[in-house]
Amino acid sequence: MALVVQKYGGSSVADAGRIKNVARRIATTRDEGNQVVVVVSAMGDTTDDLIELAYKVATRPDVREFDTLLSTGELVSSTLLAMALKEMGYQAISLSGAQAGIRTDSVYSRARILKIEARRVVSELEKGNIVIVAGFQGVTKEMDITTLGRGGSDTTAVALAVSLKAHVCEIYTDVDGVFTADPRLVPEARHLREIGYEEMLELATYGAKVMHHRAVELGEVYNMPILVASSFNNNPGTLIHGGIPMEERNKARGIAHDINVAKVTVVGVPDRPSIAASIFEPLAKAGISVDTIVQNTSIAGVTDLTFSVARSDLDKAMAIMAPVAKSIGAKECVSDATLAKVSIIGTGMLNSPGYAATMFRALAEQGINIQLISTSEIRITCIIAENDTKTALQALHKAFELDKA
Amino acid sequence: MALVVQKYGGSSVADAGRIKNVARRIATTRDEGNQVVVVVSAMGDTTDDLIELAYKVATRPDVREFDTLLSTGELVSSTLLAMALKEMGYQAISLSGAQAGIRTDSVYSRARILKIEARRVVSELEKGNIVIVAGFQGVTKEMDITTLGRGGSDTTAVALAVSLKAHVCEIYTDVDGVFTADPRLVPEARHLREIGYEEMLELATYGAKVMHHRAVELGEVYNMPILVASSFNNNPGTLIHGGIPMEERNKARGIAHDINVAKVTVVGVPDRPSIAASIFEPLAKAGISVDTIVQNTSIAGVTDLTFSVARSDLDKAMAIMAPVAKSIGAKECVSDATLAKVSIIGTGMLNSPGYAATMFRALAEQGINIQLISTSEIRITCIIAENDTKTALQALHKAFELDKA
Repeated sequence: MALVVQKYGGSSVADAGRIKNVARRIATTRDEGNQVVVVVSAMGDTTDDLIELAYKVATRPDVREFDTLLSTGELVSSTLLAMALKEMGYQAISLSGAQAGIRTDSVYSRARILKIEARRVVSELEKGNIVIVAGFQGVTKEMDITTLGRGGSDTTAVALAVSLKAHVCEIYTDVDGVFTADPRLVPEARHLREIGYEEMLELATYGAKVMHHRAVELGEVYNMPILVASSFNNNPGTLIHGGIPMEERNKARGIAHDINVAKVTVVGVPDRPSIAASIFEPLAKAGISVDTIVQNTSIAGVTDLTFSVARSDLDKAMAIMAPVAKSIGAKECVSDATLAKVSIIGTGMLNSPGYAATMFRALAEQGINIQLISTSEIRITCIIAENDTKTALQALHKAFELDKA
Repeated sequence: MALVVQKYGGSSVADAGRIKNVARRIATTRDEGNQVVVVVSAMGDTTDDLIELAYKVATRPDVREFDTLLSTGELVSSTLLAMALKEMGYQAISLSGAQAGIRTDSVYSRARILKIEARRVVSELEKGNIVIVAGFQGVTKEMDITTLGRGGSDTTAVALAVSLKAHVCEIYTDVDGVFTADPRLVPEARHLREIGYEEMLELATYGAKVMHHRAVELGEVYNMPILVASSFNNNPGTLIHGGIPMEERNKARGIAHDINVAKVTVVGVPDRPSIAASIFEPLAKAGISVDTIVQNTSIAGVTDLTFSVARSDLDKAMAIMAPVAKSIGAKECVSDATLAKVSIIGTGMLNSPGYAATMFRALAEQGINIQLISTSEIRITCIIAENDTKTALQALHKAFELDKA
């Protein structure tokens, strides 16, 4: 008897009818002879509604209260799902994050899982129950409720799968898994039946919305196979795992894109030691992630320094940079919020310089100007004008022959 | 520094604006130098909405899941109230029933409080926090969530007040406290500034909706003064306590009424031992409370037996009685669902036969037929046709001079 952990996202449990549909899918997995642990997100827009309510009573809602408030969304969906299963004649029980032993640190709104004390989950499985765990939440050692932040329910699912030594962790969502590019922008995009952890990590980090990179990372560390599939059909989905055959390596696997991109340029920076620290320390303290950084060679002791941030962080970043630019004697600080990132991803790219050349040529042929470039071992990212995104994706998809299996 | 426990009902926290209003009232109590523990119900119709959702996924929702589901309503209101107080600059923290140490038995949907382990509440008070406790909920020794059933949040408040040795337990609702009769039916009804526990218990049990008898009973056992008042104004409310002056005793204090009344008559019952047990044991097992029971003197070994039940229990009671009537050889079983109870309440009534005579005469003068009568030491109840309720209340209010202080 295999143990399967399944996670269903908010759109999969958006109303009573969809909850019943998910219950039937879980029942099928059970009927196939598996033990089943299910992690569930809040129904549809519940979390957004709760956030709205909080901002109606407070301009800056207390973070501890906020987390307990948000955690109720998953309690509602998990209890309803357990009820639906029992109505169908299956043994099932819901557990809150606290009851399931999801122990976290005390960093509210983006808590990290420290460990899982799975005694209760194990004992309910031994009693023959399907165990439904409220996703996205945990509990501190003081028994205060935390939420895990972005990608929280996916992370709950993978962490539980690891802790329970599950056979597989299945993430059910509203898309069929991972594609070589976003099918809404690239009609030729091809569905991938499998992908390696590292490639998926880069795809998720650089814009593919299907799964959060945090949960992929956890899967990679513990080598837990993750199936991403749709809860609305029986299409096969994409298996994320570490056992990709060697001959599948060393080729482009997919293209990610992200339009939540802005750049900031500090113009006329005196080129002396500690300048970079003066600029990036205040941003880090404010919790702003800086992505790509480019510093030109200095001419006459003065240089320009450009970095990219999430577009949603731009106002905050500019407010921090204005006094910093002044204090370090820079000329000015300018920004551009109409940018996008396009990334090609595939293992072994860094060893094959041809990939970068192919990418740059493909963009050049479309007249697309590359503003910033960054790379990892398995990724090349170009920052371009947002307006060029669709053209760039289609050109790259063709240039790397991603439409061909 | 006095410790005050306040409870706010669902209508008092029905939306963000009312939650802020309640926060201001709590802040005022704090500003007056008190330690404050607040018990809060779910916002407005939240509980009904959750119940509706449960019945959309299951025809008979599992009771354990149902309780966890319903408990989220009070988590939402308690966290929002804590946020609103913090926004106003006050130290506040919300606690779930589990966090507040409300330990109950495992009878889901109508759990009873076994004890309160108030360590966390006390330590938060010592830190200077206003403590907001989610009402209506507790936790079993297995850490499963229970709800307390009808009157649950009132009971949480009184139990916490007793456990913390509070100065007073204040129950805030949408009415000004207790009146000599329902002001909507009796315009002359007079507001009571104080009332004894026993009288309040009878009023609450026999139809006054202002407070549930379960919480009053708890207040009486532990001699905890309970103030019932409106959260929408600063009117003085009604203090329920044990120290009513002696000269206030031995008079009618108020009239309660209840239209949730039906009667069942088992016709032609053979009069032999164990018949009553045969009838009432199956009802008790089904959880149906039988109120008044009348058995006529038997003629030729046959009698009629009549009892009253809540109108909402009538269908269930009749379904149970049909086979029972047959098995004991009764002729038939008939019912009437268009009844009401009117009760006059006041300490020392049983020692003053004049009260019963006054009541019966007042009803007779209005041509109202009395169908069943029951009494306690401090109450006389008549069951009459529902249509006569208003006339009966007004006649009794006048006959007992309840409009005069």
